[in-house]
Parts: sequence; C-alpha cells; structure tokens
Amino acid sequence: MSKLKNDLFLRACRKEKTERTPVWVMRQAGRYLPEYRAVRSKADFLTMCKTPELATEVTVQPVDLMGVDAAIIFSDILVIPEAMGMHLEMEEGRGPVFHNPVRDEESAKKLRKIDPVKDLGYVMQALRQTKETLNGRVPLIGFSGSPWTLLTYMVEGKGSKTFSIIKNFIYNQPKLAHKILKEISESVSAYLSAQIEAGADAVQVFDTWGGILSPADFSEFDLPYIEMVIDGIKRKKQPVIVFAKGTHYALKKLSKSGADVVGLDWTMDIKKARKEIGDRVALQGNLDPTVLYASQDKIKEEVKGVLKHYGHGSGHIFNLGHGIHPDTDPENLKALVKFVKEESVKYHKD
Amino acid sequence: MSKLKNDLFLRACRKEKTERTPVWVMRQAGRYLPEYRAVRSKADFLTMCKTPELATEVTVQPVDLMGVDAAIIFSDILVIPEAMGMHLEMEEGRGPVFHNPVRDEESAKKLRKIDPVKDLGYVMQALRQTKETLNGRVPLIGFSGSPWTLLTYMVEGKGSKTFSIIKNFIYNQPKLAHKILKEISESVSAYLSAQIEAGADAVQVFDTWGGILSPADFSEFDLPYIEMVIDGIKRKKQPVIVFAKGTHYALKKLSKSGADVVGLDWTMDIKKARKEIGDRVALQGNLDPTVLYASQDKIKEEVKGVLKHYGHGSGHIFNLGHGIHPDTDPENLKALVKFVKEESVKYHKD
Repeated sequence: MSKLKNDLFLRACRKEKTERTPVWVMRQAGRYLPEYRAVRSKADFLTMCKTPELATEVTVQPVDLMGVDAAIIFSDILVIPEAMGMHLEMEEGRGPVFHNPVRDEESAKKLRKIDPVKDLGYVMQALRQTKETLNGRVPLIGFSGSPWTLLTYMVEGKGSKTFSIIKNFIYNQPKLAHKILKEISESVSAYLSAQIEAGADAVQVFDTWGGILSPADFSEFDLPYIEMVIDGIKRKKQPVIVFAKGTHYALKKLSKSGADVVGLDWTMDIKKARKEIGDRVALQGNLDPTVLYASQDKIKEEVKGVLKHYGHGSGHIFNLGHGIHPDTDPENLKALVKFVKEESVKYHKD
Repeated sequence: MSKLKNDLFLRACRKEKTERTPVWVMRQAGRYLPEYRAVRSKADFLTMCKTPELATEVTVQPVDLMGVDAAIIFSDILVIPEAMGMHLEMEEGRGPVFHNPVRDEESAKKLRKIDPVKDLGYVMQALRQTKETLNGRVPLIGFSGSPWTLLTYMVEGKGSKTFSIIKNFIYNQPKLAHKILKEISESVSAYLSAQIEAGADAVQVFDTWGGILSPADFSEFDLPYIEMVIDGIKRKKQPVIVFAKGTHYALKKLSKSGADVVGLDWTMDIKKARKEIGDRVALQGNLDPTVLYASQDKIKEEVKGVLKHYGHGSGHIFNLGHGIHPDTDPENLKALVKFVKEESVKYHKD
C-alpha cells in the first residue's frame, strides 16, 4: 500500500482526508476507447478476459489515457458461473448466453464450488501483471457479480426484459434458489479473497439485477448473500464497494451490509444519501452517464453539481451512476476527469 | 356516472369511502388471455387498435373473464405520434418502429398538432362502443403516453437499452426538445379531453420512460409536461391517474402535478408512499407482476401484504406495479382479483 503514488481512491473509500475527490468510471476499460477496440479487433471478448497480457493492456489504458485515479481489472462477471461448470458463450450482438441454464435440482447438481486460483488463474495472473504494469501509479480494483445477479444469468440463460424465468424460479423453487445462492456466495467470497491475494487493492460487488426485485424479495434473495459474500472475504484493509443498481429502497440496508462504500446509480440524490448513510460508509457515484453526450460546458456544470451535492469533506469517490456507454466520446470522459480534479479541491480544504 | 353499477374504482380515485378496494391491472386486455390471442390471430396489433369492434371486444374481455373493477380501452400510446404525422410500423418481435425518427428542426417541422376527433376517431368510436357494451358494469379508463415517453419513442425511433439518442438530443438540442414536448403536450391534452368527451370515466397518463432520467432531468423534461397535460384536460369529475415508472425520487412532485391518483411501481413501499403523499392523492398499485408466476397461496399472501401496507381507509386502487406479463396464467390473475375483493373488505370498515 505504501508504494502507491496515488492512493486518493483508497483513502476516500475509508473516509480518510484527501486533497481532492478521486475519480474512476465503471466500464472505463471498454468499447468507447479506440485503443480498446484495437485490442478487441484482434481477439474476442472472452479471449481478452482469459489472456492476462490483453486484460492488462486494456485495464491500464484508461489510467494512461483518461487520468483516472483507479484501475479496475478487465474481466466479466460471468467467469464465475463458467468456473462453476456452466458453458458460457458470447454471441455477437446478443451478449452472453448459457445454453444449459440452471432450472432444477438436476442442473443445479452439476454446479461445483470453485477453486479461484486454479479455475480462474487467468484473472489472478492479469491482476498480478496489471499491478506490475501500473507500478504503484493508482490502486487496482477487483470485482465480482453479486450472487443474485449471477443466479439471474444462470437461470435465465441470457438477457431478459421481463425476467420471467428467474422470478418463476424463486417463487416456485425458493429452497433450491437459496441453496444455489449460498453456493455462489461461497464461490464469490473465495474469488474476491483470491483477487485481493493477487494484488487487488479494493473489490467491488456489482449487483446489476437487484432492481428487478421488490423490496421484500431483495431482502430475501439478494441482500443476505451480498452480506454473506462480504463477510467471507479474507482481507486486511482492502475496502469493499457494493453497487446495487435500481435498489433505491435498500440504501440503509446496503450501508449496513459490511461494505465500506455504497455505489449510487444516477437516479439517487447523493445529498440525501449522504445524510442517510454517509456517517457509516463512503459513497461512490453518481453522474448520469448520458451526460457525457453533452457539451463539455454542460459536463462541467453537471460535475460541479454532483460535487456540490455531496458537499465538503471526504468519503466521496466520483463515478458515473452506471457504466460508460460505448458511444461516448473519450475526449468528454477526459474532460470529466479533469473537471473532477479541478473542481473538487475546494471541498477538501479545512 | 349515476348509471354505473360498480363505481368503486372512481370513488377510490377520489378517496371517497368504498366497501372494498377496487382492482384492475395494467395490460389486462392483453396477450396473457387466450381469448385476446384468438382475436389477435385474425388481425395485427395496429388493426386491432383501429377497428372499434375488435378494440371493444378485447377491452371488455378482462371484465367478463377476470372480474376487474375497471376496463381500460385497448389502444397504444404511439397512436399520438402517428396522428402527428409519423409513420408507425409494428415489427413482429421487434416492437414499434418509426423509420423516420425526429432528430432535428427539419424532421420536427413535419409534426402537426392533432385533431383527436378527426385523426383518432377510431379511438373515440372504440370508447363509445365499449361504454355501450359495458352498459354501466364498470368504469372505462382512457389513456395516453406522457409527452416525455412519446418524445423518447419519436426520437429513438424504436426500443433502446441505453437511450443514447434521446439523451443526446435533450443535451444538445434542449430548446428543440422543449418545443416538441410542448406540442406533444397540447396534443395529449386534446386527446385525453376527447376521450373523456367520448365516455372515458377516468384517464391515465403512462410515463414509461421517466425512470431513464436523473431527478434533475425529470424535473426539466418530463414533469412540467405531465403538469401541462393534466392542466389542459377538459374534464368534470373524471379523475386523472399518473404512472411514472422508475421515478421513486419524484413521488412528492407527482402528487402535486394535478393528478388525482399516483401509480406506484413494484419497487415502491406503498406504506411509506401513503405517509408521504396519501393525504393529497389516491395511490394505485403495486404488486410485482411476476408474483403471478407463483402459487395461488403465495399470491394470496402477497395481496394481503399490499393491502396491509396501504392500511385502513379509502384511496387505494389495487393494481400491479407494471403491466401483466404475457406468459401469466389467467387463472392466477382471476385468483388475484378474487383475493383483493375478499381480503380488502376489512380495511374499509369504520
């Protein structure tokens, strides 16, 4: 840790004093960057995930090109179900597909507990290699999908608009759902622990599909497993961030989940959120990613708005409220990063 | 009005005393019903909208078959952009498409203000015919998309995951966006007024895409036009319902929009919502539609939960928190309606 030249992000996660607000953005290693697309043109998505050299290259790109204060390892949340024994395919234009989804006792039996070092060694290797390449410039974030989000993909088999199959599953086979969620949780904990062991300075749990649940179902099928995961992570001072998109109703509960940082999507009022849970956790977020389609004047105004709404003092990591869209102009993200760096200083003076 | 045999829905909209909680569900005239599919197999979707006999037939089906306390006219929100001059096509499996979306001054100029009676006479005819067929059994609801939701479709041209085009549009051509929103608002007011004139006992404004906006953008591009629409409706005692999905942050504002009823999606806590705005408006909602995939025991339990959370007294219209899914078993909706009727009585005793 002491070797980090820029540890603003980590200090902000722990609500320690910083000179300015750190900034990174979700999906920063992604398609909006021509340099990313150049790598992607030579290898498919999963090959990139599984080739540490390529994963390292695209992970470091936004640090070099955009000036963000943290790197997040390039990978995919579905490597876990794959390591648990499911056959993952990425179909061009359709996204990830499991041709043999989990829907009953029979298919659930085929899932195995993962040995992250053995099964997901390529992720660990990418983390080590990225750490080396970063050479202390900024911290490196590891991540995983939440158990609920992974189960959703594993049961649906592919993207969905209505999520009929997973909802059907939890209402009609709740015991089996809980059983698998517990198994996934153990695998996710082991996976995140191994990422920390391999050099991750912080880890983020992405709960992409929490928002399809009613508050009551979130409390039954999602939150307990986020808590179980966090509880099971072997870590020293490495912070845990939880980002559960669309779960406005669960803010307080997430702040008590054991996470150090709660991510906010762009529909949340960061001022209200700080008032409600800011004494307990740091907050990450939450500019609407589509603001990056606007002029740089407008982007600056919006950046100032988020900083002002969070207000004085530490505990804020600037981010978007959702992953950056592929059709974003990189120059606008670069400008955003610059604006955060410039405009946030005044909120950190005594 | 006096001729209605069952006016529970209308009384609940006005927060007047009722003997039990009325119930209807969004998309109740829809694909989940075999009787609907039988009609649909003989005519495409738009033909059904434009043929008063067919629209009447499917509008009345859920009253006959499910026992709901209100009918909602079978139509589509996109008939307005079509009447404004856009060419609407329904592509099988892809949904509605405008091949010439509105993106600039040039294409915006082609939009014309509608004369609802002339341009959308088929909707008015369907309303009159449905009123006749219903013969006072239950009230009839008319509806429209909100200006923001209609603009989203008109600019995107089709469904979207990221809504890049509409966001780009409002950030880079805000003046044009406001100009079109104002024009749409006038058309929507005129349309809903004409629906009331043709016999609608209440009207609902569907704001399907409010939730893609940040709170600030919702206040700029969406809410003012919902207010403008409501303000412009010529009505006597006919209640206005507003349902803005995913706008948890705007509850209080919607309750001051001039609407008599605010619809809640399934992520909202109806108990909290009643505490916050229940003195001002009635509430409609908000069971998670996927609960209908569960067993009838579970459905009953969930119905009891929503009723209990709303609590004693009038001002609640039971509904789902989103349209019913096409793969729902009609028997389960029938059971839901029965449960609401039975279980709600005790909440309306003095």
